[in-house]
Amino acid sequence: MQNIYDNNKFFNEYIEMRNKDINANNLIEKPIFLSLLPCLKDKKVLDLGCGYGDLCKLADTDGATKIVGVDISKNMIDLAIKTNSSNKIKYIIKPMEKINEINEKFDFVLSSLAFHYVENFDKLIKDIAKLLHKDGYLIFSQEHPVATAFIPPKNKNIDTKVDIENKRYYLLSDYNNNGIRTVHWNIDGVKKYHRNISTIINTLIDNGLQIEKVIESYADDETIKLEPKYKYQNDRPYFLFIKAKLL
Amino acid sequence: MQNIYDNNKFFNEYIEMRNKDINANNLIEKPIFLSLLPCLKDKKVLDLGCGYGDLCKLADTDGATKIVGVDISKNMIDLAIKTNSSNKIKYIIKPMEKINEINEKFDFVLSSLAFHYVENFDKLIKDIAKLLHKDGYLIFSQEHPVATAFIPPKNKNIDTKVDIENKRYYLLSDYNNNGIRTVHWNIDGVKKYHRNISTIINTLIDNGLQIEKVIESYADDETIKLEPKYKYQNDRPYFLFIKAKLL
Repeated sequence: MQNIYDNNKFFNEYIEMRNKDINANNLIEKPIFLSLLPCLKDKKVLDLGCGYGDLCKLADTDGATKIVGVDISKNMIDLAIKTNSSNKIKYIIKPMEKINEINEKFDFVLSSLAFHYVENFDKLIKDIAKLLHKDGYLIFSQEHPVATAFIPPKNKNIDTKVDIENKRYYLLSDYNNNGIRTVHWNIDGVKKYHRNISTIINTLIDNGLQIEKVIESYADDETIKLEPKYKYQNDRPYFLFIKAKLL
Repeated sequence: MQNIYDNNKFFNEYIEMRNKDINANNLIEKPIFLSLLPCLKDKKVLDLGCGYGDLCKLADTDGATKIVGVDISKNMIDLAIKTNSSNKIKYIIKPMEKINEINEKFDFVLSSLAFHYVENFDKLIKDIAKLLHKDGYLIFSQEHPVATAFIPPKNKNIDTKVDIENKRYYLLSDYNNNGIRTVHWNIDGVKKYHRNISTIINTLIDNGLQIEKVIESYADDETIKLEPKYKYQNDRPYFLFIKAKLL
C-alpha cells in the first residue's frame, strides 16, 4: 500500500500543480468525470481516493444525504477537512485495500484517478460490489492503459513520443503484460499498476457490474487553445472512464 | 461498400496467405475466437463476412440447426460452396450494409475480422440487434483500435514500430479520430474504418447489447516459438474480440 501523498515533497509539488488553472485534471479529467455523474441528491456516496475532497464537496452541493471520503494520505484528509468540510461529509484515513472494513452500503462509489495505484484490482472491485446497493453505480477514472503500458527505465523521465517523417510514434510496449510500473513522478519510485482494458472491463463484469459507458479522454478545440500540448490526447488518451451498474 | 475480395489479385494473395499454416489468423485470431464460442448445437447461426465458410462449417459440425453465411464477395461464396458445404448452411452474396433485408432471427451472430470494413457501425449493430432473438449473442473480432488508429501515408507500407535505445515505439496517432483509414494491403486503396474502443463498446450498449467479455489478442510462448514476430502482439494487440448478449 503506497502512500506517496504523505511524502511532503511529492505532496507540495502535487498541490502546486493542481492549484494551477491549466492542468490535465481541470481541463480534461474533471469535465469528463462530471459528465458521467447524475444529480446525487438524496444519494449516499463513497469517494475512494478522495484527495482533498473536491468530489465530496460537489456531492454535498448536489444534495447527497451522506458522503464518505476515503484516502490513504493524512496530508490529503487534513486538507480536505480544512477546505471541503460539511456536516454531511465524513473523511476517513484508510487505504483502498482496506475498504472491506466499511460496514454500510452506498448508491454511488466514485473514484477519480486512484485505481491505478492498487495492485489487486479483482479484490478492489469485489469490495466495491459489496459496498454498493443493488442498481448502485461505480463511476471511476484512471490512467488509460495505452499510456501506462510501457515499462519505464528506472526512475528517469523519458520521451514517450517521437516524430519520424511527420508521423507520431508513442512509447508503447507490454500492453498485454499486466503488472507493476515504477515511474518517476515528482519523486522516484512511484508505483502504478498497469492493466489492459479487457482486464479492467472483464473484472467489473465478473463481479456483477454491468458496463454502461466507457469514455477515453480527448481534448476539444477550446482546451487545445488553452494548452496546445493536449492535442496529443487525441493521439493517445491519458485517462479512461467507466460507469457501471451493480446488477 | 467495398468488395476487395472480388479483386482477383487481392483474392489470390489473400487465399495464398490463409493457406499457410503460420499466419495470424490460424495462430492468434482463430483460437481466441473459438474460445468465446459455446457449443452451437440446436442453435440458429448467422455469420457476417463469412469468407470461405470455415466458421459456418464449424457451426454445422457443432450441430447448429441452420446456418446462414453472408459475404459481399462472389469469389468467397463460390469457394465456401465448394469447400464448406452442408445441407444446413445457406450462403448468400450480400454486403453487411444490407443485412436488414434478412427476415429471420438467430441465436448467434458471428463475425470474424469484418466489422472494420463497415463505415456505419451504429447501423450495423442496430441491424444485428434486430436479427437476434432476446438473450441471443453477438460474438465478433475486428482489428484492434490501437493498431488501426494512425492515418497511413497514401498507399505505402511503412514501419509501424521503431526501436530507440531498446525501447519500442509504435506508430500511434489519431486514436480518438474515428473515421476512414485507406491502407495498402495486397493492393492499393483498401478502406478500413477506425473506431476507438469506447465507441465500439458504447454503440453495442446503446443498442441493447450487454458486454459479457472483451479479449485483446496476445501470443503465448508456443505461438512465439512458431513465429517470433508475434511477440509484438503482447506490446500492441492486432485484434479485439467482444461477446455481447441482447437484453
